[in-house]
Order: sequence, then C-alpha cells, then structure tokens
Amino acid sequence: MTQSLIEKYFYPAFENPTLLRGDDAAVLTLPDRGQLAVCTDSHIVAPLFFPGGDIGRLAVCGTVNDLAMVGALPLWMTASFILEEGLSLEILEQVAHSMHIAAEEAGILIIAGDTKVAERGKADGLFITTAGVGSIPDDRKLGGALARPGDVILLSGTIGDHGIAVLAARGELAFEVQVASDIAPLSQLVEAALEAAPDIHSLRDPTRGGLATTLNEIARQSQVAIMLDETAIPVQPPVEAASEMLGLDPLYIANEGKLVAVVPAEQADNALQAMRAAPYGDAACRIGQVQEDPAGRVLMHTAIGGTRVVEMLSGEMLPRIC
Amino acid sequence: MTQSLIEKYFYPAFENPTLLRGDDAAVLTLPDRGQLAVCTDSHIVAPLFFPGGDIGRLAVCGTVNDLAMVGALPLWMTASFILEEGLSLEILEQVAHSMHIAAEEAGILIIAGDTKVAERGKADGLFITTAGVGSIPDDRKLGGALARPGDVILLSGTIGDHGIAVLAARGELAFEVQVASDIAPLSQLVEAALEAAPDIHSLRDPTRGGLATTLNEIARQSQVAIMLDETAIPVQPPVEAASEMLGLDPLYIANEGKLVAVVPAEQADNALQAMRAAPYGDAACRIGQVQEDPAGRVLMHTAIGGTRVVEMLSGEMLPRIC
Repeated sequence: MTQSLIEKYFYPAFENPTLLRGDDAAVLTLPDRGQLAVCTDSHIVAPLFFPGGDIGRLAVCGTVNDLAMVGALPLWMTASFILEEGLSLEILEQVAHSMHIAAEEAGILIIAGDTKVAERGKADGLFITTAGVGSIPDDRKLGGALARPGDVILLSGTIGDHGIAVLAARGELAFEVQVASDIAPLSQLVEAALEAAPDIHSLRDPTRGGLATTLNEIARQSQVAIMLDETAIPVQPPVEAASEMLGLDPLYIANEGKLVAVVPAEQADNALQAMRAAPYGDAACRIGQVQEDPAGRVLMHTAIGGTRVVEMLSGEMLPRIC
Repeated sequence: MTQSLIEKYFYPAFENPTLLRGDDAAVLTLPDRGQLAVCTDSHIVAPLFFPGGDIGRLAVCGTVNDLAMVGALPLWMTASFILEEGLSLEILEQVAHSMHIAAEEAGILIIAGDTKVAERGKADGLFITTAGVGSIPDDRKLGGALARPGDVILLSGTIGDHGIAVLAARGELAFEVQVASDIAPLSQLVEAALEAAPDIHSLRDPTRGGLATTLNEIARQSQVAIMLDETAIPVQPPVEAASEMLGLDPLYIANEGKLVAVVPAEQADNALQAMRAAPYGDAACRIGQVQEDPAGRVLMHTAIGGTRVVEMLSGEMLPRIC
C-alpha cells in the first residue's frame, strides 16, 4: 500500500532520477566546493488548504526560504509525510502537485522521502516535514549575528498576510476577511538583493512570531539595537482590520513570503531597487535602522510620535499557522 | 515557550557550534569532495519507549543506517519534533538524551531542528522526523540494482527482534515475551565490511517489511533471483514463538539494527569475518546467494527440503513499529 501510494502520488509529482533510484539514501554530487546549508521544518498547518496556498506549497517554500536566508542556492530537499488513516487520496494528490509547482519555481529537487500512516485520531490529516540542502557561494557571509550600527533594515512587503489568511480559512472568525497567504519561494529575490548589495549582513524570513520576533532575534544575536519606523511598515487594510478585531498585532503575525534584510547603509538603495524589480519584492521598503544602544532591543517610532519597545512575543503564538 | 523548550531540552543534548548559531539553516563545510548521501524518515513508533530503545534512539539509528547502506560516512542530521500538547517534558528530556547517546556512538552531529506543537488529540505524543547527510568516498559504488548472479547474501544477525519487542511493549499480547529491540547504528559494521570486501554490491537494512521485502526489492531492482536457505536465517526462540502465536512470519517483521550485504563470492568470507568482529555483527551469517532465474523473485530452500517463493509483503504491515 505504502509502496503503491509513493509510486502513484509522489513519484509523478517529484520525478527525478535521484529519487527514482530507490535506495535508502539519495546519492548526489555537489556542483561546487562551497559551503553547505542544511535546514529542517515540520509543517502542521490547519486547515491544509487556504487562500493563497496549502501545506504542500508551505513545505517547499519554507524550506527554500530557510536556505535562501543564509545565502544558499537551493539544491535538494527531502519530504516526509505523516498521514492520518482515512486521509483522502485526492488531498494527497493536490498537495503533491502543489509541492511540484513550488519546487519547480524555486529550482529545488525533491530527492528523498518517507511516508508513515498513523491510525485515525492519532494525527490530524497530514503533517509534512522537510529538510533542505543548498550550496553557499564562497564569498557569502550572512548571519543573524552580523548586524552593525548604521545598517539599514529593509522589508520585502506587507506583513501578517499568511497568519490572517490561515485564521480566516478556519472559519472561526465572526467576520469575513479577503486576504490570501503570501507564501512564496524567495530565492530569486535573495539572489537579486545579493547581486546589488553583496555585503548584506543578515537576511531572515519573519515566519512564526512575525517581524517583531525576527528583529528581536537579530538584535540579540548581534548585540545591537534596531529602531523601526511604524509608519513605514506596510500592512494591508484587511489584515489591519482583522488584527484589530482579534486583538492581534500584525508585527507578531506569521509571514511565509517576506524577508528582512540588514544592509550596510551605502548599499541599501541598491538593494531596495533590486528587490523591487525581483519576484515577490515589488512592495519592498526601508523600515528602520540599526544603532548601538540599547543593545539587544527593538524600538519603534510610533505613528503618533512616541517611541516604544517592541518586545519578543511573550504570550502564546497562534497555533497551527505553519 | 518553544524557544525555552529548545534551549532547555534540545541544546544541552545536541550541543555543537553549528546548531547553536541559531540561523535559519545550518552552514557546513564538506570534509572532502566525494558524493553526498541524503535521506529522511519519519518516526511514529508507539509506544515511545520499549525494551532496547525508544523513539529517539530509533530516529538517530534509522538515519545513520540509511546513510550507511549507500556507503556514506554519517556527518550531519536534522531532527524535527511534532509534540502533542501535554506531552510530559520528562519524556522529551529522555528522548533527547537517547538521541544524544546514539548520535555520539554513531559519530553524527545533529545540526538543525524544528519543534511544532499540535493540540491535544491531534498528534499521538511525539513524532520525530529526521534527515541525514553523509559523504561517500569516491571509490564506493553501492546500490540495490547492482546484485549479480553468483553473489553471496550475508545477514548481520537475528531477525524480527525489533518488531516483536515493540508489539510486546504495547501490552496487547496475551503472553509474555522477553525480547529487546535490536536498534543500533550500523556505520562501523558497514565500514568494517567494506574494508574487508571493497566490492560489496548492495547493502540494505531490513526495516519495514522485514528481510523478505528488502530482498524482493533488491531482486527487482537488479533483475536477479535470490535463493535463501531457511535453516541459515537466525531467529531468536522467543521471536519465533511469539511470531507463531501471532500468525506472523519473522521474514516480514521489522529490524532496526541488521543489514543484508550482497557480496561477490570471492570476497564473501572476508566480509563475513570482518562483520563478526565488528560492533553488532557477531551473529553474522551467510543466508543465500544470487542466481539468474527467475529474475525479480526471491526463493527459499525450506527446512523440510522443499523450495518456495518468498513474496513481497502483500498484506498490511504492522502499524507504528517505526
């Protein structure tokens, strides 16, 4: 059964000679001798389908983006499926198809996989865990610990779209929201930014915990302060409205197709222009800068003229968003 | 919460500079320019603890063994955890400790991870999905499609121990069984065998579907016949007794610390001696040979003097064994 499931649903969607060889591990040759990037993520989003994407697109883009954020060119990924007994095979086929489309767009090959089936009631439909391998060109050095005072903070577009789209798709909101998830593979956007601004210090995608959490992580890792400009951070009106009604702050809501770049000031304009011309970057903007003090903190000039601390997310994160 | 969980339970168990860097993907340098092996597996075994091991040891050894079966030296692995809300943190700590011990024994580093929490009743305690990366020395060429007529089939020890141990641990059997799982990392055993017999054609660990399924896979991939000698296949008496009472055939029961080697006849004695002297190989034995016809099939000389076909597992596999 598992074998025929793999042959019927996964092989057609992911077909490539490495995967089809069928040994215990995929065997691969590195295209060059640079460093390797390796990442992993489990995806347990509920529902499995929502405006703008599904768990399959999420799994591929999440992997591609984690690789891209350390400057890696995506090469290969694995995908391991935990299915709840009784899951409709149509769903599986749709998800595999989404993965295929996203992987093609991102130029990543799915080269190994596994499938396990849990009894009814012991897993929720479908969980997908992925791992990614990418190669980092020799001259690149990116990391959350490399932000320096004077650097400019760029954001590639609006925030909060993914989290609100998934919440709305659960059908639990008392009002209608017209927002699609922003799930997208960001490797081309990263390549464009790095070509225009080769000395970018840090890249990160603000997924779980949102923009606020991501910037707090960078501030802590680099022991610098980040000063944001609230009016510069783009939020789509329906996301803003839904967040307000739910008592949520878009700064803490997950994104799946956005990135933050910490760029030396002299390369910031080049980076911004390049991002705006690249896929998924047309709404890129400058949202703040890095300063020395207070080290490890994120601050924000608010719309009404004050300054406030933007904390790490301390309460509960929205569950099952990714 | 997730952050403190990671810092409290996972970092101490898996501590290494690559993991602690805390960026979106781990950044690594390959020790040489050979080929890469990449594999993935989800682990959903129930119960989480059983005689001879637990889900953590299973996750690490399963990964190490998949790499070893294509001749790769294990380098790095990722581990992604899906936790059911309410899982005791003591359990998580024990599992992380088991992973640490097994990874140290196998010489593999856990370099990236992820944790997701599903609501109560939406996952069964704990699922762990791993991916592994290993390097294959340039002169090695192993694969399930490389078995040739005349080759000898070696097995590294008794079969069925893992499957029966897990079944017994569920407490659903009407009788007592004293069997421990055979979970073990087999990379040293593989290195010893390859040093003594560098032209080994195929290696595979008979996990899900057991020895019969593994040999059928090799027979099909290589388009050869495999002839087994039933009396030569070692089964521990309690495994034999339990299998009989349950109506199971040990040939189809999962192992987690055994391997099958398909070895050119002239190197078979060397390989066997080396395996017997290596960790987890002391009960290694010759169980059959490869012949031309009937291509794609596995046959067996039975204990009572006949010959029968050993089919691929066609019924249901034991659920949640790995």
